[in-house]
Amino acid sequence: MPSRILRSLLWLGLAGSLFAQPARFPGVAASTNAGSPFPRILPDNRVMFRVTAPDAQRIQFVTDRTYDAVRDDNGVWTATTDPQVPGFHYYWLVIDGVRVNDPGSETFYGTGRQTSGIEIPEAGDAGAYYQVQDVPHGAISEQWYHSAITGEPRRFFVYTPPGYGQSGDTRYPVLYLQHGGGEDERAWPIQGRVNHIMDNLIAAGEAEPMLIVMERGYARRPGDNRPPPPLVPPKLFDMTPPGPDDPPAPKLPPDFERAFQAFEDVLIQEVVPYVDAHYRTIADRDHRAIAGFSMGGMQATLFGLKHGDLFSAIGGFSGAAGGFGDGHVDPETFLGGVLADADAFNARMAYVFLGAGTTEPPRIYAAVHDFHESLAAAGIEHTFRESVGTGHEWLTERRFLREFVSNLF
Amino acid sequence: MPSRILRSLLWLGLAGSLFAQPARFPGVAASTNAGSPFPRILPDNRVMFRVTAPDAQRIQFVTDRTYDAVRDDNGVWTATTDPQVPGFHYYWLVIDGVRVNDPGSETFYGTGRQTSGIEIPEAGDAGAYYQVQDVPHGAISEQWYHSAITGEPRRFFVYTPPGYGQSGDTRYPVLYLQHGGGEDERAWPIQGRVNHIMDNLIAAGEAEPMLIVMERGYARRPGDNRPPPPLVPPKLFDMTPPGPDDPPAPKLPPDFERAFQAFEDVLIQEVVPYVDAHYRTIADRDHRAIAGFSMGGMQATLFGLKHGDLFSAIGGFSGAAGGFGDGHVDPETFLGGVLADADAFNARMAYVFLGAGTTEPPRIYAAVHDFHESLAAAGIEHTFRESVGTGHEWLTERRFLREFVSNLF
Repeated sequence: MPSRILRSLLWLGLAGSLFAQPARFPGVAASTNAGSPFPRILPDNRVMFRVTAPDAQRIQFVTDRTYDAVRDDNGVWTATTDPQVPGFHYYWLVIDGVRVNDPGSETFYGTGRQTSGIEIPEAGDAGAYYQVQDVPHGAISEQWYHSAITGEPRRFFVYTPPGYGQSGDTRYPVLYLQHGGGEDERAWPIQGRVNHIMDNLIAAGEAEPMLIVMERGYARRPGDNRPPPPLVPPKLFDMTPPGPDDPPAPKLPPDFERAFQAFEDVLIQEVVPYVDAHYRTIADRDHRAIAGFSMGGMQATLFGLKHGDLFSAIGGFSGAAGGFGDGHVDPETFLGGVLADADAFNARMAYVFLGAGTTEPPRIYAAVHDFHESLAAAGIEHTFRESVGTGHEWLTERRFLREFVSNLF
Repeated sequence: MPSRILRSLLWLGLAGSLFAQPARFPGVAASTNAGSPFPRILPDNRVMFRVTAPDAQRIQFVTDRTYDAVRDDNGVWTATTDPQVPGFHYYWLVIDGVRVNDPGSETFYGTGRQTSGIEIPEAGDAGAYYQVQDVPHGAISEQWYHSAITGEPRRFFVYTPPGYGQSGDTRYPVLYLQHGGGEDERAWPIQGRVNHIMDNLIAAGEAEPMLIVMERGYARRPGDNRPPPPLVPPKLFDMTPPGPDDPPAPKLPPDFERAFQAFEDVLIQEVVPYVDAHYRTIADRDHRAIAGFSMGGMQATLFGLKHGDLFSAIGGFSGAAGGFGDGHVDPETFLGGVLADADAFNARMAYVFLGAGTTEPPRIYAAVHDFHESLAAAGIEHTFRESVGTGHEWLTERRFLREFVSNLF
């Protein structure tokens, strides 16, 4: 079988990728590559992408924008980008019109599918807190369970702090942490670097040891075959500010019940009890928090406000309960008036955090900032934080997670 | 930024993939797809691959062999394969000469990079033991640690049985389980379905609760920048039996010291002590086993035989200590004579398992079968098992793991 022969050649090639000599190319190979010398990060954070494609007619690399690659006489196509913002960016390439992943990159579940990603390092040691360091390490566990609500097996990931796997009866508080739309339960463990952030903060005494549960933010009841609800309003990610002729963005997805309700039930009725039964948690609201990124920030703030009996801290990272677009709410009536009595709310809720990157798409920045304005006007104590120079991406979220967990429990 | 707009469209598209109606296509979407209706598995196990590529000149799908796709008037390319063998197969597509992954598939680290994969279900409930069932679930943890031998952070995965995360002092035996060449520490957890296999066997009372540690089978000492050793002899994966003019395959990789020695030291000197210190293990040889697939089977049998003070059971799945190609060894001299006294060996070693698929490449089948012959001739008690109708792939390995762990501890 020819493919077997091909496979043998590829596996032979493996050794080369594992033991590769430092290549004689400019810059350094991205840490997100799968053993490949390309893409490379140049000293000014431009990125050099490369793929060998002698028979292709057109090759483009898509990251902050679309870059046309140039072919050399050997059929090697190269594109060098503008300087890229530090952090983690999804990207892909387009070969004769087909969007595919870069063979040189690891892949990451984002944008609704497996997608290439590139990590642009921050200058100096600004990113040390999300790098793996020689400190005591916790672990991230993949946990399956049976969901009666969906009728299907589901899984979550759970970070457990250093020492958890040894014998002992120590119990821990729990943060429930949700991913963004188009991502899944693997996003915080991989793109978000939750384990490295937590290990480093715990080692430095900057965060309490805790469990972090990361679930899949989608659910559907058995037999629900209705067409998909529009989770994301049009133009949400458009970098152009809304114009006077643009219709107002919906405050919540029009079909909110369907978009989030099944998942809310799964998280509240199934996951929280499962975690309390199967992990060494401190099973009360004072030791339980919820946060999330983008769609997950919207879910976390909504669920956290609705279930004040379960959660004492709430984080909305680049997403908040007011919905997408205009994020203002009326505190007197929102979610049955949970925000109406600010004194009572402030006495009961330990911590509310909202954050947005300064270069997020305008509708997303506004959604979070508007909700912050509504909370401030109502006298609800909270933190509003900006991540300077970063957009709707993972460096923003790592920064927010760091601050949020440093103030938890 | 155009890419942001594109991204918004993709994220909108996500909802469609999550809530997709059953498509009006023949067969069923593969379980390994990332929300895409293609590839599809037809009732006779033929596979229908599809990709939209209006501007491409040629599209091929590569699985058991290379299939040319046919373009329709809308630029949609389709290829339907011959019936595929049940199990898990890596595959990819070739767009105008460039090997890339299928945008519709999840990706799996194999063949030295992220690679598309497709699961062809077995008939009836033959595959139930590796499907997620409604039984008590263990977990698979991602564990980082600092390796002094390599000077780098490394990670392994560890399966812990149901109940492990709760309080308690129960201690467990440990199986060390290695992946094949071109794969990494993610292979057994994902392609191998270790957690589902173990959960089901433990629930059925067919295996003892145990930990399973899955490490990255490559290591290099700091400053070792020598060119890569040839881990895989030429023609190993060639389906053509060796001819009279073929040179004899080497019994071990020519540069064995470099290929495996650093990793052997990492596993024996660092991982085993780390696991015993950080997990609730029964830290003696009677409760420690080692096994692996292909290159990992070779490592496991070599390390297990060399370190009889540490391991009381050894499994070589589609790979064994005699090397690749001719797997015969001289028991009187092999590894310092560890096999020379069969009575002493048999009294001390609890379990030796060797297995090969009947449709493996001839040189690989021979490598395992030859080693089996050498053990049999020397009077070494062991099991030799064939997986009927499967090759050098993951269904073979799931079967071997099932039998192996059912007889452990």
